[in-house]
Amino acid sequence: MSCHPLDPATAKEIKQATDLIKAEYSGISLHFKAAGLEEPQKAALVDFLDAEHCGQALPVIPRQIFVIWYIAYTPRLFEGIVDLSKQALVHHKELPRDFHGPSDRMEMNEVAQVVLKDPVVQAEIKRLHIDDTTVVLDPWDHGVDGEETQTRRIQVFMYMRNPANNDPDSSHYSFPLDFMVIVDPCKMEVTKVIRLPLGSDPTASAVGSEVPHRRTDPVEPEYNHRLQKNPPRTTLKPYHVIQPEGASFTVNGYLIEWEKWRFRVGFNWREGMTLHDVSFDGKSAFYRLSLSEMFVPYGLGLIKYLDGCVVTKDGKPAPRPNAICVHEIDNGIQWKHTNHRTGNATVVRKRQLVLQSIITVANYEYIFMWYFDQSGELTYETRATGILSTQPIDKDATAPWGTRVADGVMAPNHQHIFNLRIDPAVGGHKNSFASTDTVPLPWDEDLNPLGHGFVTQESILDRAGTVEDDVSKGRVFKILNENIQNPVSLTPIGYKLVPYRSQMLLARPGSWHWRRSEFCESPIWVTKYKYRQLFPSGDYTNQSLGGTGIKSWINESRDSVRNEDIVIWHTFGFTHNPRVEDFPVMPVEVAQVKLSPFNFCLFNPTNDVPPSTQEFNKSVEYTDQKSTVQESSGCCSEPKSYL
Amino acid sequence: MSCHPLDPATAKEIKQATDLIKAEYSGISLHFKAAGLEEPQKAALVDFLDAEHCGQALPVIPRQIFVIWYIAYTPRLFEGIVDLSKQALVHHKELPRDFHGPSDRMEMNEVAQVVLKDPVVQAEIKRLHIDDTTVVLDPWDHGVDGEETQTRRIQVFMYMRNPANNDPDSSHYSFPLDFMVIVDPCKMEVTKVIRLPLGSDPTASAVGSEVPHRRTDPVEPEYNHRLQKNPPRTTLKPYHVIQPEGASFTVNGYLIEWEKWRFRVGFNWREGMTLHDVSFDGKSAFYRLSLSEMFVPYGLGLIKYLDGCVVTKDGKPAPRPNAICVHEIDNGIQWKHTNHRTGNATVVRKRQLVLQSIITVANYEYIFMWYFDQSGELTYETRATGILSTQPIDKDATAPWGTRVADGVMAPNHQHIFNLRIDPAVGGHKNSFASTDTVPLPWDEDLNPLGHGFVTQESILDRAGTVEDDVSKGRVFKILNENIQNPVSLTPIGYKLVPYRSQMLLARPGSWHWRRSEFCESPIWVTKYKYRQLFPSGDYTNQSLGGTGIKSWINESRDSVRNEDIVIWHTFGFTHNPRVEDFPVMPVEVAQVKLSPFNFCLFNPTNDVPPSTQEFNKSVEYTDQKSTVQESSGCCSEPKSYL
Repeated sequence: MSCHPLDPATAKEIKQATDLIKAEYSGISLHFKAAGLEEPQKAALVDFLDAEHCGQALPVIPRQIFVIWYIAYTPRLFEGIVDLSKQALVHHKELPRDFHGPSDRMEMNEVAQVVLKDPVVQAEIKRLHIDDTTVVLDPWDHGVDGEETQTRRIQVFMYMRNPANNDPDSSHYSFPLDFMVIVDPCKMEVTKVIRLPLGSDPTASAVGSEVPHRRTDPVEPEYNHRLQKNPPRTTLKPYHVIQPEGASFTVNGYLIEWEKWRFRVGFNWREGMTLHDVSFDGKSAFYRLSLSEMFVPYGLGLIKYLDGCVVTKDGKPAPRPNAICVHEIDNGIQWKHTNHRTGNATVVRKRQLVLQSIITVANYEYIFMWYFDQSGELTYETRATGILSTQPIDKDATAPWGTRVADGVMAPNHQHIFNLRIDPAVGGHKNSFASTDTVPLPWDEDLNPLGHGFVTQESILDRAGTVEDDVSKGRVFKILNENIQNPVSLTPIGYKLVPYRSQMLLARPGSWHWRRSEFCESPIWVTKYKYRQLFPSGDYTNQSLGGTGIKSWINESRDSVRNEDIVIWHTFGFTHNPRVEDFPVMPVEVAQVKLSPFNFCLFNPTNDVPPSTQEFNKSVEYTDQKSTVQESSGCCSEPKSYL
Repeated sequence: MSCHPLDPATAKEIKQATDLIKAEYSGISLHFKAAGLEEPQKAALVDFLDAEHCGQALPVIPRQIFVIWYIAYTPRLFEGIVDLSKQALVHHKELPRDFHGPSDRMEMNEVAQVVLKDPVVQAEIKRLHIDDTTVVLDPWDHGVDGEETQTRRIQVFMYMRNPANNDPDSSHYSFPLDFMVIVDPCKMEVTKVIRLPLGSDPTASAVGSEVPHRRTDPVEPEYNHRLQKNPPRTTLKPYHVIQPEGASFTVNGYLIEWEKWRFRVGFNWREGMTLHDVSFDGKSAFYRLSLSEMFVPYGLGLIKYLDGCVVTKDGKPAPRPNAICVHEIDNGIQWKHTNHRTGNATVVRKRQLVLQSIITVANYEYIFMWYFDQSGELTYETRATGILSTQPIDKDATAPWGTRVADGVMAPNHQHIFNLRIDPAVGGHKNSFASTDTVPLPWDEDLNPLGHGFVTQESILDRAGTVEDDVSKGRVFKILNENIQNPVSLTPIGYKLVPYRSQMLLARPGSWHWRRSEFCESPIWVTKYKYRQLFPSGDYTNQSLGGTGIKSWINESRDSVRNEDIVIWHTFGFTHNPRVEDFPVMPVEVAQVKLSPFNFCLFNPTNDVPPSTQEFNKSVEYTDQKSTVQESSGCCSEPKSYL
């Protein structure tokens, strides 16, 4: 194979793997759920990467594909690993009946058809007198309530199209119906129909009882431009980013190099975009970076696209072209100093490389971005957008668990909780995790006579566990390599983690949400690296009963994590209490996590970025409401001081 | 006068004011410290703005100039207000002897000359055997230690130029000398010479004793490109922002209009850029926004520049051309939704208007930016850059109060604490301040049987005081107008304050730093609006003894602040423990505070932004290491889901 061991699985590889599994089950119909690269084990991959970095002969690493499947229309769930060079199923295991695979689009479409044919559902629809429009179904993975834990379930929220246009692209989230449906996708039958509460009274009417549909005319417009009554605003003038000499980055397969950075991009069905073997200025920084988990309890210029591939129900590869977008941006000033003695200003602009990937999860979309900065800083940004999931609400009613976002439409409060998995390799794989506080010195006649003194206090984590945040102490988190001293600072080289400070899980301890989402209890977790510990809620999260995630791993063995191969898990998110401004479509809500070099380099790594000049930037000065091209000094002029 | 009452003072107006004051003091030499617009009193200005908004006849508001001056080379400090229409000094007051005016560049230059002529200083320089280079002085405002509180003092840090080049633009901060000097600028004489400690031992040698200068060869390069040994990197390709049809904003004097926003820009000697009469989508949001205070305890596309003007020592106007830079940026995706049923994606890009102003404070620079977003969100961003102030440190010594940033060079830990003054006018001037928590519901058989429920709890502040932050409760701060109900949400219209969460002042309670910086004790303060309460450490902060700031105001009268004309003061900043990467010049450190509409509009205000199209964006696809122009779908393609 000529590909790199970290290159995502190709369509051909996925087909080989599923063909081999199908052959094992000849005559039995399978429902494939997931397929992708089984990444090489760390020891082998580290050897490969070391050889690659040194230009030595590369060891051979077999390509393996990880696959999950059901026997179709049964609860029997399997996982396996196919070794492509051996053409063999080297791992093959049936999972316990309490474990459930993810649902998929084809299955959800079948569920929707089953719902629409169900006589109880048909009676509910008839009750609402909505023949002038079309009913729209939103099937979701179901949670768990502790009952019938071995039965797969899909829940279906019911909506209708905007009766004013009955258009397939109308926003049905503005027209929620007052009941929902539970389906068993193994039997493909409706198991329950439930009426929703319609106001601040949390009780609901009984299915079959006569509650007329409250037809409302939402005041908000459609989000889809074609369906909007008014044409879009015309105030925005075009904004073009031109890179006449091309991009500053190079892409070679999945290897990207840009401004002292070198890294590989991966893509898989579960985590989406992943980053591997990340180095800055020739020095190792991170082994693997990934969005490891997400829990949602309720409730431009020169662009390169990288492709991915997943699998369909019947085992065919499903290419995901343009899954990852790569481009550069200019983010203002990187550094500046004006020497007031000479009047000379030196200014350098801040160029960043952006990798962006987007997923649509029914109504919502998540935009996941990595910003690589010339300063050695990496920023992981999450933008939440898309459409709020909605419920009907009585006229003039409000509820403390949601916001009225249109007439008759309530968007419930919910949380989006993410976990960023950071597998560091700061100057090598043996790293430590430190919390550094800045604390006042005590009053002291000699050492602190004025009471103004303060010092830093660093504590290094010894055993796997959680780490508390404390803004009041100016707490800073660092990944250190205690084996390598920075010759300038005379302290260990490191990378700083700047967390996104947010509320943790709101569900009560002991609840099913709480049991399943082990990572949502603390903002920072540190574990010793272990094979296949990638997902902090466990490998199988659908209808999960808990007990397979990061808290369980740590309780099983409180490993030493000082100067070891460690993994840092940062939990962050949004408690989203909807605003009217979030409807009918939501402006992005942004969260950023940063990883910054901290005594990792010998001096400012952007010191050699060329100065910002008008010749290079070609900016143009605005002149009294009409634009004329003229030389300007860029954003450099300033008062030397306000005095 | 044809100017607007909020337009900054012009050069002509400043000259008129200082001429009038000089005439009052005929024969006495004055040292002018500051001059700028005395903003109209709020009642009069509100009447004017109301009339302006309604297109009615405008009341006449007199132009007034506020001025601060010393009788030259004395501690006698005065403030006054000149009414230009009356040509009269309508306010004229000598300040108590414990109050001190700011220092200025001309005064500091004179101080530097005095220091260099002082025989003790000359002996100290001679001791160091540094005749092959030039001594460089950094005069700073002095703090206060409780002694001689009526004597003005300026402290001078001592450096030398890089002996390798002895160039005026070399970074002398890489070569700190081991002593400092205190000067009385009234007498213009040296009052004290002090040796600095050179290691983790906090004691220092006595002035006059023989301590040789430890000549070091810093490993770090110069920040100034001309002095760097190596040419800058050549990896960066040009990046041009082109707006072929001009900018989307209009500037009319100091009035700016852009994408539903309308506001006025002000500029004065103390706060720099200010914003006034800010409305979004035709609705009032803020009366005045300003950076009110800063305490540092140790210690591109189409661009429009707006001008400012301050005053020189002798009362002449000192224009500050290009003090404020205005331009648009593209900040990625504003919102997106893909309808998986039809495969149709709708995506809108996020355009922002940026107002940027930069100050140089000796070694440091601060970049202050306001981002106006199409979504009604305002972001206040502070970027700290420039050069770290440094001290000498012994070879191989480290210290818990700083970082070695080069051989023999230590950068001490310090804080940068800012205060953003928010004078809201959300739908009018009577506003309230609410803290909204998201809290779990108790377990309840009927209401919360699964333990997953949570609700919001809002508490509205009744009396002036501080407000605590609490991330664990998902606390959100809102400025509400309880007199105006949003007809969609059925709740008061509001704006959300998203604070920058940071450590407060580290100095001990009772210390002089603590007494002077009253605003640094709490992240959020709310007061009732009062005439001339603009600066939360008091009007005169140099060598201040405290007792004149926001805590004192509140202790004097705990006003009702519910449904009143209120002001919100947000304290935030950086505890800056320097990194090697911050030297010889510091990549920007960024802090952001956000103000977002919260049930202020009737729906997403960006719903009418036109869709993002290739025709409009003109983005270009990167193709295997050479750029070819071809149509692409922009950052819009994506996997519909990872499954």
